[in-house]
Amino acid sequence: MLRLYYSPGSCALASHIALEDAGAAYETVRLNFANGDQRKADYLAVNPKGRVPALITDRGILTETPAILAFIAQSFPAAKLAPLEDAFAFAQLQAFNSYLCSTVHVAHAHGRRGSRWADDPAAIEAMRKKMPQTMSDCFDLIEHEMFKGPWVMGDAYTIADPYLLTITGWLEGDGVDINRFPKVRDHHARMSARPAVQRALSQQRAAAA
Amino acid sequence: MLRLYYSPGSCALASHIALEDAGAAYETVRLNFANGDQRKADYLAVNPKGRVPALITDRGILTETPAILAFIAQSFPAAKLAPLEDAFAFAQLQAFNSYLCSTVHVAHAHGRRGSRWADDPAAIEAMRKKMPQTMSDCFDLIEHEMFKGPWVMGDAYTIADPYLLTITGWLEGDGVDINRFPKVRDHHARMSARPAVQRALSQQRAAAA
Repeated sequence: MLRLYYSPGSCALASHIALEDAGAAYETVRLNFANGDQRKADYLAVNPKGRVPALITDRGILTETPAILAFIAQSFPAAKLAPLEDAFAFAQLQAFNSYLCSTVHVAHAHGRRGSRWADDPAAIEAMRKKMPQTMSDCFDLIEHEMFKGPWVMGDAYTIADPYLLTITGWLEGDGVDINRFPKVRDHHARMSARPAVQRALSQQRAAAA
Repeated sequence: MLRLYYSPGSCALASHIALEDAGAAYETVRLNFANGDQRKADYLAVNPKGRVPALITDRGILTETPAILAFIAQSFPAAKLAPLEDAFAFAQLQAFNSYLCSTVHVAHAHGRRGSRWADDPAAIEAMRKKMPQTMSDCFDLIEHEMFKGPWVMGDAYTIADPYLLTITGWLEGDGVDINRFPKVRDHHARMSARPAVQRALSQQRAAAA
């Protein structure tokens, strides 16, 4: 059975929702980042990066959200979570997910995890201060250039949708008003109404209780 | 015909080499970042992100190195640049490329492009100062946990190889001694001897002359 390691509020939510969308048999393991679970030897033996998500399969461990999402789509083709027979459309989907991973998630991380990239407290504060602007710039690009609608890639729901939902969910805590991005805001509402999203979120809430 | 937009010394080299590996018919367009070509209206009409690489296809534009590399592998299956029939092995390959994109490239970017994430010159200097350490940490993980050998993913050459070559090529300029990572160093030498790599590099040199 697949096993997903996650922490609440992290990007692992995207993979969790995709497992629900796929109808996969899986279990979850919750890490408490506040307790430093991700840096304990038990978990580093699973994922030496000390990050989430990690997906344990019968072949071994997978990390990195874009890779895990594409794996879920390819492993459960009946769920039609990606255009698997169209290399160009699949690449467009992967480009969207890669942008979320390498640019938007990174912009967000400068709000609370600036110590990854500088040691000086004043520098970390300067990163925190600029983060809402870089997040807004990213979402301007998503809203005006990348989002096709009604789903991220157009008429078909794909693995880009739970990933965007997850990162959109960070905007309020990042001090960015989602109403500046009407397509993204409506997508967030549309996603939040999906049973698969509600199941993943309620599982995570139950595990935290 | 495929058209690749690149700038010398950028991560676009990975896609350029993969096009050579694939035996693709393609042409290249060189952008001069020092002249701000990537921010000019002509190029923003191609790629609103103002970054490279961008690959123009007969279906439209693709961006983001991991997406372009997988597209090349899928579009030229005879070149055997990825384990296209094995979802788990493909996901491992994608996880490696995603790590390069979202963590290693990002670590490197804090050396010269800190203004993306902070405005204060002292903060930008603090990022520049820490960058060699974060790059070393990334390559420790690659050397000891991720690199399988003789190629990145093991016995088979894949699209991860030109991507690692490209980023390894930044270490010297980043003030990191490649000799600390013997497997990565030997990989860089093995890659540099490949005709496809030499063709891509000599095309880029000729365009710059």
